[in-house]
Amino acid sequence: MNGAEAVTAALADTGIDTVFMNPGTTEIGLVQAIANNPSIRGILTLFEGVASGAADGFARVAGYPAATLLHLGPGLANATANFHNARRAASPVVSLVGEHARAHLPFDPPLASDIAALAGIHSKSTETVATSSQAYAATVRAFHAATSAPKGVATVVIPSDLADKPAQPDRSEPAKTSGLTPSSESLHRAAAALAARGAVIIAGGDALRRPAVSKLAALSSHGARILAETFPAAHDRGGELPQISRLPYLPEQALALLQEASEVILIGARHPVSFFKYEGVPSLLTPPSCPVIELVPPGVPCLEAIEALAELAGLDRGAPTAGSREALPEPGDSPLDATGLAVAVANAIQAGTVFVDEANTGGVALQGPTGSSPEHTWLTVPGGSIGEGIPLAAGAALARPDHRVVALVADGSSLYTIQGLWTIAREELPVTVVILNNLRYAILQFEAARRHPMNDRVRSLTSLDPPRISYRKLAEGFGVRAEVAMTPLELLHHLKAAEASAMPMLIEAQLF
Amino acid sequence: MNGAEAVTAALADTGIDTVFMNPGTTEIGLVQAIANNPSIRGILTLFEGVASGAADGFARVAGYPAATLLHLGPGLANATANFHNARRAASPVVSLVGEHARAHLPFDPPLASDIAALAGIHSKSTETVATSSQAYAATVRAFHAATSAPKGVATVVIPSDLADKPAQPDRSEPAKTSGLTPSSESLHRAAAALAARGAVIIAGGDALRRPAVSKLAALSSHGARILAETFPAAHDRGGELPQISRLPYLPEQALALLQEASEVILIGARHPVSFFKYEGVPSLLTPPSCPVIELVPPGVPCLEAIEALAELAGLDRGAPTAGSREALPEPGDSPLDATGLAVAVANAIQAGTVFVDEANTGGVALQGPTGSSPEHTWLTVPGGSIGEGIPLAAGAALARPDHRVVALVADGSSLYTIQGLWTIAREELPVTVVILNNLRYAILQFEAARRHPMNDRVRSLTSLDPPRISYRKLAEGFGVRAEVAMTPLELLHHLKAAEASAMPMLIEAQLF
Repeated sequence: MNGAEAVTAALADTGIDTVFMNPGTTEIGLVQAIANNPSIRGILTLFEGVASGAADGFARVAGYPAATLLHLGPGLANATANFHNARRAASPVVSLVGEHARAHLPFDPPLASDIAALAGIHSKSTETVATSSQAYAATVRAFHAATSAPKGVATVVIPSDLADKPAQPDRSEPAKTSGLTPSSESLHRAAAALAARGAVIIAGGDALRRPAVSKLAALSSHGARILAETFPAAHDRGGELPQISRLPYLPEQALALLQEASEVILIGARHPVSFFKYEGVPSLLTPPSCPVIELVPPGVPCLEAIEALAELAGLDRGAPTAGSREALPEPGDSPLDATGLAVAVANAIQAGTVFVDEANTGGVALQGPTGSSPEHTWLTVPGGSIGEGIPLAAGAALARPDHRVVALVADGSSLYTIQGLWTIAREELPVTVVILNNLRYAILQFEAARRHPMNDRVRSLTSLDPPRISYRKLAEGFGVRAEVAMTPLELLHHLKAAEASAMPMLIEAQLF
Repeated sequence: MNGAEAVTAALADTGIDTVFMNPGTTEIGLVQAIANNPSIRGILTLFEGVASGAADGFARVAGYPAATLLHLGPGLANATANFHNARRAASPVVSLVGEHARAHLPFDPPLASDIAALAGIHSKSTETVATSSQAYAATVRAFHAATSAPKGVATVVIPSDLADKPAQPDRSEPAKTSGLTPSSESLHRAAAALAARGAVIIAGGDALRRPAVSKLAALSSHGARILAETFPAAHDRGGELPQISRLPYLPEQALALLQEASEVILIGARHPVSFFKYEGVPSLLTPPSCPVIELVPPGVPCLEAIEALAELAGLDRGAPTAGSREALPEPGDSPLDATGLAVAVANAIQAGTVFVDEANTGGVALQGPTGSSPEHTWLTVPGGSIGEGIPLAAGAALARPDHRVVALVADGSSLYTIQGLWTIAREELPVTVVILNNLRYAILQFEAARRHPMNDRVRSLTSLDPPRISYRKLAEGFGVRAEVAMTPLELLHHLKAAEASAMPMLIEAQLF
């Protein structure tokens, strides 16, 4: 066994079976170790941001980490934007990064850069392997760091000489993952807040997953309002699950919703903050005088805390609030707009669908109709770094291959990581990517217009046309079948055809 | 004038007229300032790595910096791989990065990350603007830092509240760019080495540009061997210019070439180091006992040092060594291989062509035949981070719009920044992108095979097929006309058609 094989043995021993990779010369030993370890599948990507985004999606759906394998500092840099998203989603990921041979590094070869400093920007732990025999334990430690509360990205840097060197790993490293439990004081404060009525609960993390979500909704029986954070990592909803709406993105709307709150209880969610700062609008979205109780921090398991809170508050745990499911409207044949899009998508969602939402401005109407769809899991981009929709979909599909993944991706967002389509085609994943083509960075035109009257030069600098991009051709270029939809009816037709085919498909939806 | 307008005023006052951009909400003020400043053109890119690579290409061809405008930490992260290349190329770039409003940052909004730490990985200076009135001087300081020897990337971080705030800039900031001159001692050592014969000069930076290259070649009249560094930032060659061949990439070949050197003189080049470490092969490529004289460090102007050295060494400055120009072979109609590719390209190069070489393994035969082409400028990727070919071509074309840019890009490399095709189409740049399609990461298969016998699993993990990628469809998707070439004759035909059209074109060259 060499150092690289010790790393893959540690992956296998901790149950990690998937490595999203874009390797280079310094990682060849690791490529060979992955190829030759029957417990591990290597998933090749054309760009590192696809690997990191896919690992994020995998972790959110599987509830378990995947690994990534990247080439030196520049490869890691390309993955950093979606590792930023993974960090904000509290997704566990073991990030393996190759490094030059130790003896070579003092000569500052062309590809050398400060890998540890770069990894530190998005990692909760970073360890450079010191001897080949320690490669096993370092990888196991990274697994523990990634999966311990609060979860996150843990990086292992592997010098190429150590990957090649014989290793006698110490496999006694205890494979324990630590949790965190809420303090008795915060539980009692939260119970008192519920009893006093007028409280608002903002939930994130696994408080929004199937095992917790009905119990979470039951906390409203004393009159508390339950909201999901604005961009949840993963939200199980629809079907018979209780409806939990999201805190709005626009700060004015969020402030209006929270202004009557007597207290705010955070369960797995961050204190709500405006995405950006606007003149005259506060950063914090809770009222200044409103007490905020952080019952469970982000990235920490929530279920036990929710159960403990229900018991302390004396709530009936028998019957969770049933979802009030409205009838779904039928899609029409008028030109697609945000409403028509939402109706078509809501009609297409099947039980078990994973729904990836990087729709941005095109997705403003999605929440209502999809609440009446069969039960599905909704993934968003908590870190706000656009360009994760397609990678998230690839990772989610690999984590849950028996269900379809439907990804709504804004045109501008899709173009950061459009290469992810190739991995979807290569692995023949049951993914439908819907590109919302409105020919512009609509959010930038919105933000520009609320500052100054729009002029042609600003409009041009935020426009994706000309030249007109053909997403159909891009998809076909990467080996994915593609269709174009101009109306809600056409979109629904293509969504159903994709579902029936069980193959990848891209639908270019022309938004008007 | 507000802070954003102060930044663009500083760009205009320092002569920077081009900004490669991919902005977000925090940069809207800067977008409006760029749009409304008639001295500055904003060039929109779909991905930040296109912006940083284009700025690198622009600087190398124009000899002058462009600016980039990027969205917060994640946007900067996406640009970092090609900023790594710019750093290794010693290209001056002014990198403008937006930041959250200062009052907003303590609340750790979703897109917040450590921008200064990230910028520090590739920047020679990083300054966060402290007041709106200092935005002007901070931008001018970045220009000085970028253009002072040794040149590089200088970063200015601009909080969005300061971009919006009224500014009364102090325009008295002196606009001086400092140089560096070689020490008298190193000049005398180098002259003595030349006089003693058996010396090898390794040249980089502007020692390989038109004003210096004939004078550089004349230094060989005492028997010194003149080599270009392995991956020059920009090398003027062909036509009547003296032939200066490059130090080989494979360390065994470089060691063989340098083993007889009595002394090595570095002029604008780094001490040659193997790209990667191989068992039993030294990192340093100069013989252990061979003295190395660093006459001019990388990123520092070389011309005066070359002239001073020639004078000290008593060399005849009249007649530079004339290039021995061999007749170009004719391209044939056999399937394309590395030799046929080189012949077709060499026949297509016109006087003034900028030639971008990210051909990697497909480009091994290029140097010989293209030495007989008319005079052209050859750009490579000194930092070794693949995915820069298409962006370099875009930036080079904007810097020298009156000549064609021909970029040879390996298939794997092209897919990191394929989005750059859109910017080429949007700006209607006279760029020909030739994709060398050999269906695999050939360098990785080469490196794997020299370690262990190849097996199907390793071959699959380093293969770009299946699914087969259609570069023609990708190009058409981004608005670029495309052709496919199977033979050297077909390739030459398409290269000439592209030249005649003056429009963007992609040629998918099938390598066998």
